[in-house]
Order: sequence, then C-alpha cells, then structure tokens
Amino acid sequence: MEKVALIMGSVNDYPVLRKTEETLSALGIPFETHALSAHRTPDAVREFARGAQEKGIGVIIAAAGKAAHLAGVIASYTLLPVIGIPLTSSALDGLDALLSTVQMPAGIPVATVAIDGAENAGILAARILARGDTALAERLQRKREEIKEAALQKEQELRGGTHDER
Amino acid sequence: MEKVALIMGSVNDYPVLRKTEETLSALGIPFETHALSAHRTPDAVREFARGAQEKGIGVIIAAAGKAAHLAGVIASYTLLPVIGIPLTSSALDGLDALLSTVQMPAGIPVATVAIDGAENAGILAARILARGDTALAERLQRKREEIKEAALQKEQELRGGTHDER
Amino acid sequence: MEKVALIMGSVNDYPVLRKTEETLSALGIPFETHALSAHRTPDAVREFARGAQEKGIGVIIAAAGKAAHLAGVIASYTLLPVIGIPLTSSALDGLDALLSTVQMPAGIPVATVAIDGAENAGILAARILARGDTALAERLQRKREEIKEAALQKEQELRGGTHDER
Amino acid sequence: MEKVALIMGSVNDYPVLRKTEETLSALGIPFETHALSAHRTPDAVREFARGAQEKGIGVIIAAAGKAAHLAGVIASYTLLPVIGIPLTSSALDGLDALLSTVQMPAGIPVATVAIDGAENAGILAARILARGDTALAERLQRKREEIKEAALQKEQELRGGTHDER
Amino acid sequence: MEKVALIMGSVNDYPVLRKTEETLSALGIPFETHALSAHRTPDAVREFARGAQEKGIGVIIAAAGKAAHLAGVIASYTLLPVIGIPLTSSALDGLDALLSTVQMPAGIPVATVAIDGAENAGILAARILARGDTALAERLQRKREEIKEAALQKEQELRGGTHDER
Amino acid sequence: MEKVALIMGSVNDYPVLRKTEETLSALGIPFETHALSAHRTPDAVREFARGAQEKGIGVIIAAAGKAAHLAGVIASYTLLPVIGIPLTSSALDGLDALLSTVQMPAGIPVATVAIDGAENAGILAARILARGDTALAERLQRKREEIKEAALQKEQELRGGTHDER
Amino acid sequence: MEKVALIMGSVNDYPVLRKTEETLSALGIPFETHALSAHRTPDAVREFARGAQEKGIGVIIAAAGKAAHLAGVIASYTLLPVIGIPLTSSALDGLDALLSTVQMPAGIPVATVAIDGAENAGILAARILARGDTALAERLQRKREEIKEAALQKEQELRGGTHDER
Amino acid sequence: MEKVALIMGSVNDYPVLRKTEETLSALGIPFETHALSAHRTPDAVREFARGAQEKGIGVIIAAAGKAAHLAGVIASYTLLPVIGIPLTSSALDGLDALLSTVQMPAGIPVATVAIDGAENAGILAARILARGDTALAERLQRKREEIKEAALQKEQELRGGTHDER
Repeated sequence: MEKVALIMGSVNDYPVLRKTEETLSALGIPFETHALSAHRTPDAVREFARGAQEKGIGVIIAAAGKAAHLAGVIASYTLLPVIGIPLTSSALDGLDALLSTVQMPAGIPVATVAIDGAENAGILAARILARGDTALAERLQRKREEIKEAALQKEQELRGGTHDER
Repeated sequence: MEKVALIMGSVNDYPVLRKTEETLSALGIPFETHALSAHRTPDAVREFARGAQEKGIGVIIAAAGKAAHLAGVIASYTLLPVIGIPLTSSALDGLDALLSTVQMPAGIPVATVAIDGAENAGILAARILARGDTALAERLQRKREEIKEAALQKEQELRGGTHDER
Repeated sequence: MEKVALIMGSVNDYPVLRKTEETLSALGIPFETHALSAHRTPDAVREFARGAQEKGIGVIIAAAGKAAHLAGVIASYTLLPVIGIPLTSSALDGLDALLSTVQMPAGIPVATVAIDGAENAGILAARILARGDTALAERLQRKREEIKEAALQKEQELRGGTHDER
Repeated sequence: MEKVALIMGSVNDYPVLRKTEETLSALGIPFETHALSAHRTPDAVREFARGAQEKGIGVIIAAAGKAAHLAGVIASYTLLPVIGIPLTSSALDGLDALLSTVQMPAGIPVATVAIDGAENAGILAARILARGDTALAERLQRKREEIKEAALQKEQELRGGTHDER
Repeated sequence: MEKVALIMGSVNDYPVLRKTEETLSALGIPFETHALSAHRTPDAVREFARGAQEKGIGVIIAAAGKAAHLAGVIASYTLLPVIGIPLTSSALDGLDALLSTVQMPAGIPVATVAIDGAENAGILAARILARGDTALAERLQRKREEIKEAALQKEQELRGGTHDER
Repeated sequence: MEKVALIMGSVNDYPVLRKTEETLSALGIPFETHALSAHRTPDAVREFARGAQEKGIGVIIAAAGKAAHLAGVIASYTLLPVIGIPLTSSALDGLDALLSTVQMPAGIPVATVAIDGAENAGILAARILARGDTALAERLQRKREEIKEAALQKEQELRGGTHDER
Repeated sequence: MEKVALIMGSVNDYPVLRKTEETLSALGIPFETHALSAHRTPDAVREFARGAQEKGIGVIIAAAGKAAHLAGVIASYTLLPVIGIPLTSSALDGLDALLSTVQMPAGIPVATVAIDGAENAGILAARILARGDTALAERLQRKREEIKEAALQKEQELRGGTHDER
Repeated sequence: MEKVALIMGSVNDYPVLRKTEETLSALGIPFETHALSAHRTPDAVREFARGAQEKGIGVIIAAAGKAAHLAGVIASYTLLPVIGIPLTSSALDGLDALLSTVQMPAGIPVATVAIDGAENAGILAARILARGDTALAERLQRKREEIKEAALQKEQELRGGTHDER
C-alpha cells in the first residue's frame, strides 16, 4: 500500500499536524512525517520531492504558514498529488498562507484544504488512495458513517431536551 | 479507465471550464460535463453525486461562483476526491467563492485550486488518476516536460535579445 | 401559531445560539432546535427542510461557520424564509461564513444577519411572523419600547454624572 | 394583499433594481418604488418608514451603496421585515455596503442579501409574504419549478453535446 | 466657548471613550457625553442632532461599532462638523465600523479617525475649535510640544543605553 | 475669510480633485491648489505646512493614493485641521490609501473622508469654516436644502411613473 | 560594476518590467533579464540563483503574480539581496502576490516593493549598489533632483493657473 | 564598517525590535537604535535621515504600526536603502502597516519585510552590507548553514521518532 508523506515547514507546527497523523492512523494508512522548510532547507525539500514516488509515496501533504511556498515547491518537483494545508502562524490569521498555497499558476496545482485543516488533509489523502483499494474505501465509508451517526446522536440528545412546543 | 466528471453551477461558466476539458482531452482522460446547481437543482446534484462512483467516475471537478456550495455539497454525498474551482462571478472577485469552497468543516474535504484555476483542476485530476496508470503518468510527465521546454525556449529568446552587458 | 426552527451545524455552536432561543422565548414564539450538518448529515438536513412547512414551521434559522452552506442548502429545499447566521468558528473571524451565507446565487435567497447575530435572527423571525399576528406584533412593539427605554435610562444615568460644563 | 416597498438611496441605482421590480411583477406582488436617501433626505425616510405599515406595506426592500445606512435606518423606524441589498457603487466593490448593511447591532436586524442581489431580494420578500397566502405560495412554487426545469433543460442540452467517452 | 458633544452608541463603549474626555479636559474644552443609539433610539439621536448647534455645541464626536451608522445619521441632521470614531466591537476588528463610518455618500461627510482613535477625535475637535480661539490654540501648541519633548526624552534615554559601536 | 488649501500628491489626481474646487467655489470659499508629494518633494510639503496658518489658511485638504502619507505628514507640521482624501490610484482600489490616511497614531489626527470623496472634503471644510461665519453657514444650509429638494424632486418623478398598485 | 538580474515568472509580465529595465538603464546600471518560473522550471531557477553571485550579479529582482514564490525561492538559494515585485496577474488584484512575496519566514528575507512597483524595484537596486559606488550615488542623487524639479515645475504651473483668491 | 540604524516609531515597539538587534549583533554588524516618530517628532526624523549617510550609516531599518509612514518619510530624505518593518500595533493585525509601508509611489522605494519581521530586517541589512565585505559574507553564509543544520537536526529527531511504516 502506498504511503502518505506529511511535511511541515517547522516542527512548531506539529501540534496542529498530529491531527493529520491521527486521521491517517485511524484509517490504517501508512505515513511518514518530515519537518523541512522550503526556504531554510530547499535542497532537502527538492531531494525529498524528487524521490518520493520511488519510495512508495502516493500522496504528499505539505503544511506551512505565512508566505507558504512549501506545497507549491514540492508540487514543482513531483507529479504526485500534493495537498496543501495553510497554517495560521502569522498576524494575518492564515489568509497569507491560504493565498500563497491555493493561488498556484497554471501547470502546477496544489489541492488546498481549509486553514489549519489538518484532519481534512488526511481524509482527502484517503479519498485519493481509496481509488482501487477496496479495503481502504470501506474503512473510509465506515468512518463517514461513524461521523454521521455521532452527529445524529447529538441531534437526538438535543431534540430530547428541546423546548419544542409551548 | 476512470472518467472525470466536470460540473459547473451554471452554463454561463462554460467559457472558463472549456480549459479544463481541453486539459483533460490533451492528457487522454475521458470526462463528462454537467451543468447542475447546488441551489436550483439540489436533487439532481445529489443524485449525480451518489451515483458517480458506480458510473465509473474517479474524480469530480466542481466549479461555482459567489457562495460556491457545489463542491462541498457533492463531497457530502460521495467518497470520491472532489476538486473545487472557485469562480469570479461576483463583485468580490472570487474571494467569496474561494472561501466558500476551501473552508470546509472537518470530515468533508474539497481539494481547492486557484480562483478560475480551470487548467490546474484538470492537471490535479490527472495527478490523482495517474497513480496506478503508468500510461497516464507518462503523458503527464511528457506534458510537464513540454511546459518546461516551452518556458525555457522563451527564456532563450528573451536572453538572446537582452541588453546583458553595457 | 407557526413555529421557528433553529438549526446549527454543530452542537459546539449552542452557546451562541441560546441567545436566539432566549429571544424567541421572550417573544412567546414556539421553536424547535436542531443540530444538523449540511456536510456530515446531508440527508437529514434535506429531509428536515422538505418537511418543515408541513410540520407547522414558518421560518427557519440556520447557523454555521467556515464554508457555511447550511442556510443555503436548506433554502434550496424549502420555500419558507430562511435566516442565516454566520458564525466565527474559524481563523478568519467569520468573514468566510458571512460570504458563504450571504452571497447566494439568483433564485435562492438567504436572509443574512450579522456575524454571530443570534439575537437579531430571533427578532427578524419575529418580524416575519408578526405579519398577521397582532398579538406578536404587540409583543414585538413592547420589546422595542423596552429596549428604547433601557437605552434612554442609561443615557439619563450617564448625563446625570457628566462633566457637562466647565 | 400587502405591498412591497422598494427604496433605493439614489435613482442612479435604478438599473440594478428594475430586476427586483420584474421579480415582484412576475410573482404578482404589488409594490411601490421610492428613491430616498438616509443622508440627503433623512426626514422623508423616517416619515416613510413610520407610515409604511399603515399604508398596507408588508415588507420593505432597501438598496444602497458605500456606507449603506438606508436599510438600518428604516429598520429602526418600523417593525416590518426590512431586506437590505448592498450595492457596488464604490471603489471597494460593495464590501463596504455589505458590512454596513449586515453588521447591524443587536435589536434591529436587516435581512441582507448578496451584493447587487436585486432578484433575490424580490424572492425573499415573496417567501415572507407567501406565508398565509396560498396563491402566492403556489406562484412561488411554480417559479422555482420553472427555474429548475430551465436548469435541467440546459443540462440536457449540454449533455447531448458532450464528449462523454473517448 | 463652544462645547464638544461626545456620543457613543452604547455605554459599553465608555472605557474607550474616556480617553476622548480626558483629552478634551486636558485641553480645557467643555464637553457633554451621551449614550444614544442610531438604531435603538433614533428619535433621540435626531432630536439631539437637530438641537445641537443651538445648545452651543461646535463639534460632535460620534463613536460606534459594527454597522456604525451613528456619525452618519447625526451628520444628516446637523451642519456642524461630525467626527466619527469606528469601534472594534465585532468579530471583524473594526473594519466594518471603519467602512460604515468613512464611506459616506456625497453631500454628508463624516470626519473619520482611526479605529478606536478616541484620543485623536478629541485632538481633531480641538484643532477645529482652535480656529479663532487663541488661548485654545496655545494650549494645543503646548500639548504638542509636550508630546514631542516626551518622545525626544525617550529617544535620549534609549540612545544613552544603546550599544552604538562595537 | 480664511482660505482652504487643497494639496494633491500628483497632478494626475487633478480630475478627481476638481470636484473639491467646484464644491468650495459653489460655497464661496476661497482656496488655493497645490501639487506636492510627501515623498518626492518633502521639504516643499514641510515648508508649506509650517507656513499655512500665517498665510491665512484655515483648513488643509490633502489627497493621495497608495501609501498615502501626504495628509499625515502635513498634520505633523501644522495645528490646522487636516482633511485626508484617500485616492484609488493603485491595484488595491484605494484600500491602501484609506488605511494609510485614517489609521494615524495618537496625537496627530487626520479627518478622513471616503475613498475619492472629493466633494465631501469640500463640504467638511465648509462645515469647519462655517463655525463663526454666519454667511457661510447660510450658504451651506441653502446647499443642503438644494440637495434635499433635488432628491425629493427625483422621488416625485419616480413616484409619478411607478406601477404602484396592480 | 556589479549587474542586476531581473527575473520574471512569465514573459507575459514583460510589459510591466520594461519599466525596471528603463530605470536601470537610465541610472547606467548593467543588467540581464530572465523569464524563469519557480514552478514550471524549478531547476533552472535554482541553478540561476546559486550561480548568480559568481556571474558578477549584485542584486536580484524577481517579479511574479498569484502565489508568487519566485523571489522567495531565489532568496533561499543565494545570499544576495533579493527584491520582490508582486504582480497583479490574478482576480485578487495582486493581494495574493503581495502576501506570498512579503510574508517570508524568519531567516530568508525578500525586500518587497509595491504591487507592480517595477520602477521602484530598479531604484531600490540602485540604492543598494550605490553604497561604495560614488558615481552611481551621484547619478541617483541627480535623478532624485530631477524628479523633485519636475514635481516642483508642475506645482509652479498649477499655481500659476489657480483661482487663488475670490 | 558601515553601521545599521534601527528606528522605531515608539519605544513600545522595542520588545519586537530587540530581535533585530540580536540578529545584527550575532552577525557582528554595528548598529544604533532610535525611537523617533514620523508624526510626533517629524523634524528629528528628517534631521536624522538627512545626516545618516555622513555618520557612516549604510542601511536604515524603520519599524512602525498603523498608518506606518516612518520608513517612507525617511526614504524621502536619504538615498540609503531603507528597510521597513510593518508592526501589528492596531486592531487590523498589521495589514494597515503593511500597506502603508509597501505601497510607496514611484521614485521612493521602501524594502518591506513581513509584518513583525524583525529578524528578517536584520538579515536583509546584512545581505546588503555583505556586498564587498567578504568577512560579513562569510558570517552570513555560516549563519545560514547553522539555520539549515538546525532544521535538518530537527528533521532527524522527528524522523527517528516517526511511525514510518505500519
């Protein structure tokens, strides 16, 4: 089974990205985690991106804040799908990271999720990997059922305690 | 081979989205195109999304402007990867569509590309489908080489005519 | 008397929305409260919206954050007036939810109130229901008088203690 | 049958607001149109708002650009539902008008529609008036069906001409 | 000597506006303070604005947050100079109040100061009143000298402790 | 009678600012117009600002675009009231000029009007100068009456041609 | 004398950047111009950036739009000063390019100029190169004098034709 | 060796700017620090800027918040390279300061770094001064190596503890 690679621009971002790891783990998707900066360690990022496919990686998730170039730089060195997570590490609440990640020029797309959308990056990677992997597709289906059931359970609890008619 | 489904909220958006069709065609990826609105034809959108996988669709691309709910609504009815293209159809230059598409809540991701990023949506779909399809991977690789060569060619022409030293 | 239905995308939003409940209660308007997500429980939202009018509901209030599709999705399945409350649940301070709620395409309007405008959603529902309900209209009138009197009372207190001339 | 009053801050805005008139006409809703400015003719606005209900008006639609105070000022003088249309009359593409209209303080709501959302303002007024007016409710239902059919018709045309498989 | 009238939309804003009072006091300018809302007490605002000049008021300062209509409404009822202070009382950090205050249509200006610019509103009022009041002009001049001297004093202290050469 | 000085950062801005001149002329207020840049001619700006009061100038209006420092720099060299007009000379539609003009630090206020608010700058200057100038106050009053009458005239025309009842 | 290297992400940006070339030419600064994309030709950008200093380049100017990574990527491969010009090539009027260029993380600065600030990029390069190059410093000084004289000349012309007193 | 001058608009900003001092110290670059306000002490700023070059200063770093005019004003009085640091001292999270600093008109550039980018301002100054100062260039090179090694060390630690395969 293909792995997911999760790369963050700085280990300071790890608290947010553990949610991506948890999501991948819960879905039984193998992954490896890196802390590499597009600006402080450009050659290591390049080397990683160029070798990712051969290492058995199927999807790359890149998370960065501010002028978030990490996902775009990786996407320029690989043909794998690259998912970008813009992070709120600056005064501008992540708007800078969002625009720096999503507004890629024609030719090199980054699949961008919400600001700090760590869980969704994991689920999106799973949706991509589940094509042609029936077992993963079933786990993904089950997880969505669980999410739905949990939501409907809360609705039931709420409805039980609501002042419905007066 | 799996198909891509391309859905736009309104046929008025077609001029932008032909670029997605051209990109998919150039890469030899089969596709079908729909004009369905999350708000004006919600049942048709739901029916489409629920049946997409069984029809042999592997990736869905949804394009909408303003309060662009189309990609998110589709993503809530399928487990296929959904790519969202925010469109500039309002006074706010597509910022509304971008935020409405990318800021999805935990559980239901949309892989968002740039505002009006029609070509990149096609390439992202190709990157996803190219996993496990060697022929497509090669066509994608070749396309990237062509893009690179075209860019370097322009650099050469520019450099030939530059006042380099004086 | 018709009821108001209040729907939130997540029970986490309940602290904000109790203010809507309080406002409706104070005006003697019956209501029911739901926690249903446009993305995690799309079928339940659809079922609710389609059946609302027959259940005696006259106005629906929908509150959601981020890419807030809830009000728009409900409005696509009913002809009742739908009031949208954009919530500040993301890094972007509710601007994403505001644009996702208010920028609806032609044909399907959402009556949007301020970000976190839980009280005003209740009052707007009351203004709508008060058409043709003289008793409610009087309660609404009385409430506005109370608000005005309370404001003028504070003005009096302030004026009493002001360094007016020197 | 109650009327809708449509007020614009300046006759220059009339080209946009004719769409509201057309929408109301198509739904058989009587209306009257005014050009009154919250700032240039404050007393006329106040007089209008205070007397609206007695004149048989059921819903007021107010459209203004820039620091769009018109809807809010009217809402402070009446208990009728007030719908606000923010207009793009300034350099800021209507963002100023949107925030000036929607961000009303607690107590005095304005039901805000999209920037330049002239058609939706008419439909929202119809949704409000259709409560307790079966004939209007049916016309509204019919209009929505027509919108849906028109959309599905375009989908059919598009699907007929699509390069579905290759 | 003419007075300044300071009006806030809600007494909750008083902590910010005490700075305006302190600034006026320090400059020996008489003032009166009001808490009146453009939306909750529109008639009281109107009455105040219409009678201000006859009461000996020379400048009006109006402070409000969110869809801040207070300064604009007052300016529509008086010919006195009206200074607007946008306040940060909402999720949008005062951007809504700034645009609602400053983007006034042609004919009715509001002299807008910075978000939460309570001190500057007082100084601007003083600059206006100092025309033709030599004593006030001198106090204003003295205050500016003090501000300058205090700044230069801090520069001296800083310079004394700086690692200037190494 | 005191004069108004109108300063623009570049003669390219003159087409917008003629409206200020026309407004001042119509109100019978003497003025002088300058084209001086805070950045290209800082010494000339400083000299002008320091000598303005002695030349009989009562109010200064400064208009600039982009990082609009002109009004703030002038305000730092004079104690006269300074009115700032942010201009839309850049890609950002005047938002940069607005923030650069209005967000002045404590101590040095600029009375900011709307983006491109050339007419309102003239009227605001008139409101300031009309304090203690009964003739000007009357002209200002008359102008406001004319504006009001013109607006009401248009309302009449509109009302005459409206499909009021059907 | 050291050269300036001017790099644009696409030859489509050349019309804007000719102004940089003209500015450098007018100041007698040798330069070379490249069209290289951080995303389409990442290896060529890297190779260029790593070899720039040895080729006698003293300052690099990089211009790009949308998710403008070009200046940041170059800055990560060289220790030369890198000047970034954000370009308005997208729906968002260059705000995306501005934030993508200026919000660089600690360690790798980009000296950012205004959106489309092609002339200023050239002058900033000249200010940097003029340190230790007396002849260039003099040319720069002379250019500034010319700019000042031209501005004062326009002021004179304007003042000659102004209706100063009436 | 030329010095760097670091100027802040207010001593309140010192906590942020100590990082600039530390960066310069670590690179062995002499500097002097000032607290001078473009608005409260305009003559002192002007005097400083005009005399900077003769005092042996090679680069000026200016930091200010809100309507941040400091860097621009200094750049108008000197031909030295001026680096601007926009600070987050207002409700708008530094967006006002960023636009006020970076959007300079043609002729007078400011080399702008990120909001609160105190460290990068120091490194940018070092890049500028390192041209023609081999020893500084080496220290800068060494510092970048250290940054890279520290980043790679963290990557190693992270990789050691990663659940790579499962």
